[in-house]
Amino acid sequence: LQKPSFDKRAFVKGVLKGEVRAASRLLTLIERRRPEARDVLKALYPHTGHAKLLGVTGPAGVGKSTLIDRLISGFRKNKQSVGVLAIDPRSPFTGGALLGDRLRMHRHFLDRGVFIRSLATTGSWGGISPSLFDAIHVFDAMGKDIILIETLGVGQDEVLIARLAETVLLVLAPGVGDEIQAMKAGLLEIGEIIAMNKADLIGAESFAEELSSIVAPRPVVQVSAENGTGITGLISALSTAMKANGSNRLKKKAFVREELRVLYQEKVLAMEDRAMFGDKILEAILKRKSDPYSLIDGWPIPRTESLVKRGATKNVS
Amino acid sequence: LQKPSFDKRAFVKGVLKGEVRAASRLLTLIERRRPEARDVLKALYPHTGHAKLLGVTGPAGVGKSTLIDRLISGFRKNKQSVGVLAIDPRSPFTGGALLGDRLRMHRHFLDRGVFIRSLATTGSWGGISPSLFDAIHVFDAMGKDIILIETLGVGQDEVLIARLAETVLLVLAPGVGDEIQAMKAGLLEIGEIIAMNKADLIGAESFAEELSSIVAPRPVVQVSAENGTGITGLISALSTAMKANGSNRLKKKAFVREELRVLYQEKVLAMEDRAMFGDKILEAILKRKSDPYSLIDGWPIPRTESLVKRGATKNVS
Repeated sequence: LQKPSFDKRAFVKGVLKGEVRAASRLLTLIERRRPEARDVLKALYPHTGHAKLLGVTGPAGVGKSTLIDRLISGFRKNKQSVGVLAIDPRSPFTGGALLGDRLRMHRHFLDRGVFIRSLATTGSWGGISPSLFDAIHVFDAMGKDIILIETLGVGQDEVLIARLAETVLLVLAPGVGDEIQAMKAGLLEIGEIIAMNKADLIGAESFAEELSSIVAPRPVVQVSAENGTGITGLISALSTAMKANGSNRLKKKAFVREELRVLYQEKVLAMEDRAMFGDKILEAILKRKSDPYSLIDGWPIPRTESLVKRGATKNVS
Repeated sequence: LQKPSFDKRAFVKGVLKGEVRAASRLLTLIERRRPEARDVLKALYPHTGHAKLLGVTGPAGVGKSTLIDRLISGFRKNKQSVGVLAIDPRSPFTGGALLGDRLRMHRHFLDRGVFIRSLATTGSWGGISPSLFDAIHVFDAMGKDIILIETLGVGQDEVLIARLAETVLLVLAPGVGDEIQAMKAGLLEIGEIIAMNKADLIGAESFAEELSSIVAPRPVVQVSAENGTGITGLISALSTAMKANGSNRLKKKAFVREELRVLYQEKVLAMEDRAMFGDKILEAILKRKSDPYSLIDGWPIPRTESLVKRGATKNVS
């Protein structure tokens, strides 16, 4: 059997046309960190930078999926195409998909303007998986106007991911009131806009008040994803925020800086079995002639300036 | 109020004498990644390299704690001092300690030859937290003959940690038989020696047989931590393995290499808000004149040879 050759151009063409099949296959290669994906991503990159990134996070049980379903419909009514990226904190042993499959079955399945995909992150990276950045570029190159990044909002990774999205929506609900104390530690700091779902529940009013006092001056928008109430107001608040953040150069730079750092970390990790730390160094440490701390103190991190001088970057004047 | 000055020499002296108070305070500084800890670790490092590392892992409910309690007693009878490092997969939101407190209350509390400590790992590092390496050096510098590293055995981090220990004991029990299929994916590959605890349970015999066929040629040692049966045999098997592995230079080099990589990653992570990636680069990428992938492709990773030449390492001839 001959190994099928990898047709980079077909991938690039397909993704730029917005084809789900090409994008899906590329995302699988990305998840597996296959080097071919990187070549496609390089070719796609010049076509990116147009999508708006909307992070949606919140604890389990607040009705995030139903609300996202409503948001998709709202964005579609406004003639915006939507990509949904569900971050899936997959266990390396079970390999199970927690969020994605559920989402894929939604009523937007047949809408060509919506592309929903779950992305497994093993959590073994220093913060954010490089796959997440790659996937965002794929959605962007497909021409999606809005990329909605859904996370569970329970761990460190979710905090980092939420920080990456230009605009972040935190979803809460009256039922999770007992956990508010615990949430104060970190979750409630996330979110430019806070949506309180299940606003029709008994006790929602007092929960909303308590919440407002904690997160002020950020707004708490009361919605009921189940009944569809309050959704128009939320969409409008999100659209205004996304538009403002979309032209925020500092946020865009922070995104690129984070991506470069993650890619560099991946490169460092890939060096594991190679000659980064040679035998002479290892022997010196084993003999206690040196120590790992002093060694790394003296170990340089390459910086922009020297690289630009040496011409290691391309097209940087 | 004046800030109390940090007495590095007192820490070094205390740890080298095996004092629990100095070691505990140092480990707290290590968990918080405080820079003072690093200075102490540099001074301690020449005094390390004597302890044997024993990883103990396995799913919840197999009686790991009771078995470890028995192992400690056994090692103590053989006049060996023991440090127990319980890896605690702490959530960044709850901040709860899962393993350590339980362990601290055991009957070895008053034995000066035993030091038990839990270490929180946030899991936000690329694989292993640098704190784990640091803590091992502290236990080692205290003069512990055996450092027992306990992990839950459920995630990627635990696999990596188990790989680090020179000798690894995997603990299973008949009650977790249903999970064996799932475990095959990764957990059963870990462990040089496999202990089947609760050997006195009904059905244990057939479970041990099934297990033996899966993990062969590695031995399955049947024990009952509750009754104390089989412990002597397990201690003897572990001691033999630890002795052999203790002089395995390849394993020791792999440990140092991993530590250097983790320390370097931490250094890269700490660069986050600084000038690693300058404004010129970020602007070029935002304008799509370059892309992050090509940029990182051209970004160098420093290598041993060049550093040795430039004299960046100390005492490496």
